[in-house]
Amino acid sequence: MPDGARPETGGIANPPVIILIEPQLGDNIGKAARAMLNCGLVDLRLVRPRDGWPNDRATANASGADIVIDNTKVFEREEDALADLNRVYVTTARTRDAIKPVFTPKGLAPEMRANVAQGEKVGVMFGPERTGVRNEHISMADAVVTVPLNPGFTSLNLAQAVLLIGYEWWQAGVDVPDYQMMMNDTFPATRDELDRLFEHLEAELDNSGFFRVEAKRPNMARNIRNIFNRANLTHQEVQTLRGMIVAMRGGKHKP
Amino acid sequence: MPDGARPETGGIANPPVIILIEPQLGDNIGKAARAMLNCGLVDLRLVRPRDGWPNDRATANASGADIVIDNTKVFEREEDALADLNRVYVTTARTRDAIKPVFTPKGLAPEMRANVAQGEKVGVMFGPERTGVRNEHISMADAVVTVPLNPGFTSLNLAQAVLLIGYEWWQAGVDVPDYQMMMNDTFPATRDELDRLFEHLEAELDNSGFFRVEAKRPNMARNIRNIFNRANLTHQEVQTLRGMIVAMRGGKHKP
Repeated sequence: MPDGARPETGGIANPPVIILIEPQLGDNIGKAARAMLNCGLVDLRLVRPRDGWPNDRATANASGADIVIDNTKVFEREEDALADLNRVYVTTARTRDAIKPVFTPKGLAPEMRANVAQGEKVGVMFGPERTGVRNEHISMADAVVTVPLNPGFTSLNLAQAVLLIGYEWWQAGVDVPDYQMMMNDTFPATRDELDRLFEHLEAELDNSGFFRVEAKRPNMARNIRNIFNRANLTHQEVQTLRGMIVAMRGGKHKP
Repeated sequence: MPDGARPETGGIANPPVIILIEPQLGDNIGKAARAMLNCGLVDLRLVRPRDGWPNDRATANASGADIVIDNTKVFEREEDALADLNRVYVTTARTRDAIKPVFTPKGLAPEMRANVAQGEKVGVMFGPERTGVRNEHISMADAVVTVPLNPGFTSLNLAQAVLLIGYEWWQAGVDVPDYQMMMNDTFPATRDELDRLFEHLEAELDNSGFFRVEAKRPNMARNIRNIFNRANLTHQEVQTLRGMIVAMRGGKHKP
């Protein structure tokens, strides 16, 4: 981990700052703080929070994200909240009368990662709950962030908007496969274990008269093998299935 | 739009169903409903909601997602809530003692899109606020969904978890560029407009004595052009800048 990096941020010395302009509800501030820590963001700044600071509702709704709440800074002026930042982005759902680059959260994340990796300090501004940011906030920002959403219902809760920015930030820094098999302590069965299971099963299906029509046997056997191959059986599960076969045939293994 | 498709779902006849197991807080149910409609999801099912149904807190927190709240169905048994579904996924933050496929929300979204496109009905289960799903719920599901998050603080608020599933679902169906220039009604300036701006500017910088050292002039002029080229000027902005030059030189255009 580089010098100055913090474990709670995934090893990033200066993760993006979240700036809430005139937030109204402590619940939302707390849930935003929780969402931030979920995503390795720890620097929260509030500009003119309606109910002052600290705020009991914020602390309760942060659900343990104390490191964010305890370090939250409060400002009277936007300019002071942004003063030390090299890049500033602003979230808005509406197109504005401004000529600005527009990122999706997914597009913004690698941009912020690259900027932060160069040692820049970046921040993302969010407007008040009901009204969102004003045009003056747009003009303070380098670029706009807009989440592609259902065009008939685009109004995001404040904490939800913070989560989406944080979520994409975190995803851009991790390398988790989109799909994997959760194996815990077990191992997939070998092909030999599967072959012996199928031979055992087919022998007992012969013995029990399941394969009545010899001409249909090869196709039916293939279909049955497909069922079990699709299940990605483990070593232990093969043993379990063989035990089930033995039991159903009266406890005696007749190969 | 295909037959049976609904505009509020982005034209999808059967978008994924969201199933909340034993949800406790009406606030969370309402915020989940709001997040669902943000993402074109409209079918919410509750299994044994603690405070019954309907729930005033849920309605208030849905912030206008009435179409979701009004159609919410309540069940006593998980089996009944899942009965008509062809595919069931379950969200959990913790690794379990089960052999299951594990998706990220990003990996799950195209999987669900493909299943839904085939006419399948899919659903995603979420556990109670404090405890999450139990092992019995894992066993009811085809696969697990886990959000890659800060390993030191993975506990997501219920509505936040619903949002992330919905967000990726919606993203998988839209084609919004990660980055674009918001131009509104304007057009980027042509290269000719820019050339004439630069010539005008350089002429007035000559006239005002800015280029004192002739040897440095070419390099300085290039740097100045770089500044303005980087700004992606529009037609109107070029006119504004030319007006500024004229004004600063005393209101007379001296080419």
